[in-house]
Amino acid sequence: MDDLYPSRREPTPSLLPRHDPVVHGRWAPGAPLSDEQTRFYDTNGYLVLENVFDPAEIALLQSGSMDLLANPAGLDRETIITERGSDEVRSIFAIHAQNELLGRLAADSRIAGVARFLLDDDVYIHQSRLNYKPGFDGKEFYWHSDFETWHVEDGMPRMRALSMSILLAENTANNGPLMVIPGSHRKYLTCVGETPENHYRSSLKKQEYGVPDREMLTALASDHGIVAPTGKAGTVVLFDCNTMHGSNGNITPFPRSNAFFVFNAKANSLVEPFGPKSRRPDFIADRAFTTVDIVKGPLVRRERAA
Amino acid sequence: MDDLYPSRREPTPSLLPRHDPVVHGRWAPGAPLSDEQTRFYDTNGYLVLENVFDPAEIALLQSGSMDLLANPAGLDRETIITERGSDEVRSIFAIHAQNELLGRLAADSRIAGVARFLLDDDVYIHQSRLNYKPGFDGKEFYWHSDFETWHVEDGMPRMRALSMSILLAENTANNGPLMVIPGSHRKYLTCVGETPENHYRSSLKKQEYGVPDREMLTALASDHGIVAPTGKAGTVVLFDCNTMHGSNGNITPFPRSNAFFVFNAKANSLVEPFGPKSRRPDFIADRAFTTVDIVKGPLVRRERAA
Repeated sequence: MDDLYPSRREPTPSLLPRHDPVVHGRWAPGAPLSDEQTRFYDTNGYLVLENVFDPAEIALLQSGSMDLLANPAGLDRETIITERGSDEVRSIFAIHAQNELLGRLAADSRIAGVARFLLDDDVYIHQSRLNYKPGFDGKEFYWHSDFETWHVEDGMPRMRALSMSILLAENTANNGPLMVIPGSHRKYLTCVGETPENHYRSSLKKQEYGVPDREMLTALASDHGIVAPTGKAGTVVLFDCNTMHGSNGNITPFPRSNAFFVFNAKANSLVEPFGPKSRRPDFIADRAFTTVDIVKGPLVRRERAA
Repeated sequence: MDDLYPSRREPTPSLLPRHDPVVHGRWAPGAPLSDEQTRFYDTNGYLVLENVFDPAEIALLQSGSMDLLANPAGLDRETIITERGSDEVRSIFAIHAQNELLGRLAADSRIAGVARFLLDDDVYIHQSRLNYKPGFDGKEFYWHSDFETWHVEDGMPRMRALSMSILLAENTANNGPLMVIPGSHRKYLTCVGETPENHYRSSLKKQEYGVPDREMLTALASDHGIVAPTGKAGTVVLFDCNTMHGSNGNITPFPRSNAFFVFNAKANSLVEPFGPKSRRPDFIADRAFTTVDIVKGPLVRRERAA
C-alpha cells in the first residue's frame, strides 16, 4: 500500500497536505450533531459536547471507573500503565473489552453514533483506555498527533479516525486539561528519526520518538492558538486523529480522569505498520476490527444474577 | 525572640492562627490602591493590577530582561539558577542590585509605593529575581507559602511582607501561570520535618522541605478554590507572603517570564533563622535592609555616557 503520510524518515520535519476529509459524512437533518457542530469540528478539529449524560449515568461511570482503578486485579496486567517513577496507575487500556459498563459506554449511540456519522462508515474501537492524572504530581503529555503514531507504528492507512474523551472528573484550566491546537489537523506534521522496535513500552509513559519539532509547533501554536476545553464530569471532548494535542502536569489536589475511545472507520482498518516491522500489541492497536453494535438508551446499573 | 510561627518541628502539620494583619496600612483617599482593591487583597491575599505601565515601558522591561538572560556574563554566578537537568536559566536573583533598569523598576512608586502602603512602613527588598519558565519543558513549582520558608530559613519574624510579579510575557491559563489559593493567607499551615543545612542550593530548583501536607492542601483548595491570575505583559500580580501558591509546568511553545520583587517592612527586618542555624546567602535573603527610595515618573531608557 502506498504511504500517503510518510514520517520518521527524513532528517528535517515538514508539513504535508492532508489527503482525507475531516468530516467524512454529509450533514443532513437527523444527524447526531447539529450543522453548526459539524462545521466547528471540521474547521477546528475538536468539539465539546455538554449534557450528553444525565447525572445518574455520570455517577455510574465515575463509580465504575474508580472501582477499576482501585481493584486492577482481574485485569490483564499488560494493560495497566503506571506513572514514571511510581506505581500509581496512569492508564488502563482495552477498557471496553475488560469492563461491561465501559464496553456499553463505547457502544452508546451518543458516542459511537457520532463517530459513525463523522467517519461515514461502520466503526470499531482501535484503542480504549481509562486515563487518570492524579492530583499533586500528574505528569505532562507532550504534544503529538495521534495519527502520526497510529500510521507509522500501527499501520492505520488514512485519516479516518477520531478520539472521544468522556470526562469523569471536572477539567479546569488548572488541573492539566487536554490542550489542542485548533486547525492543526488540516496539515500533517512529519517527525524526524527512526522508531526503535518495541518502543511502545516506554512511549506510553513518555514519548521520545514521533515527537513534533519545536519550531513547527511554535509556528502552529502562533498561527492557531491553543485551546484547553474544560467542563464538568460527563462532558465529551471529540478530536480528529490528526489534531495536535498535549497536556501540562497537574500540581492541584484535583485529579483528572477520563474514559477514552478511539473509533476508526472499518474501511480504514489497519495494515502492516509503515515504520517498524513489528506490530504493537492488540490492546494498543486492535486488529480484530469488530464493528461496534450501536446501542440506544440510558446507561443503567446491571445487577448480577444471584 | 518568640517564635509566633513555628514550623518543621512537629510530626504532623497544623493550621495555626495568623497574628498579623494583611493590610497593615489604613485606606484613605489618595492611597495608591482603591478601597475596593485594598479589600480584595485583604480578603483574597492577592491582587492583579492592569495597565500599570505604558507600552514603551513594557517593551523596555522586556528587552532589558531578555538582555540579562541572553548575557549572564557580568552577573554574580551564584545568582543564576538553572533548570534541573539542564543549563537553561530558570531564575536570576538580586536583579535590583545587578541591573540599573530593574533596580529602577523595584523603586517605582507604582510598585514600591503600593508595598509601602500595604505594609505601612518603609520597605526594603528582601529578595528579587527574574523568573523564566521556558516553553516546551518549563518545570512546575510545587505549592508553598513563602513566609513559611522566609520565617524558618531566613528569620523573618512576622507576616509583613509581600511579593510583586511584573509579567514580562503574556500569562495564559496554558503556559504554567502562577496559581494561588485565595484566602489561604489567613491561616498558617505548618510543615513537618527538619531543614537540612545549606538546603537552599537544591530547594531553588525543587522544593523538598517546607512542603505543605497533601490533605491540608486538598482541604484548603476545596474550601477556597484555585485562581490563576492571567494577563498581558506589564500586568502586576501582588500576593501576600503567606498566600499558598504554585505553578504547573509549561509544554506550550510560549515562555513565561516575570520580574519578581519581595518587599518587607523595615520593622520586620530579619533576625536569626527560626529553623537551621546557618543563614542563607544575601542574594536570597537580604540583610542590608536598605530602604527603597521611592521614585516617581516613567521608566525611560538611560543612555550611557560615551
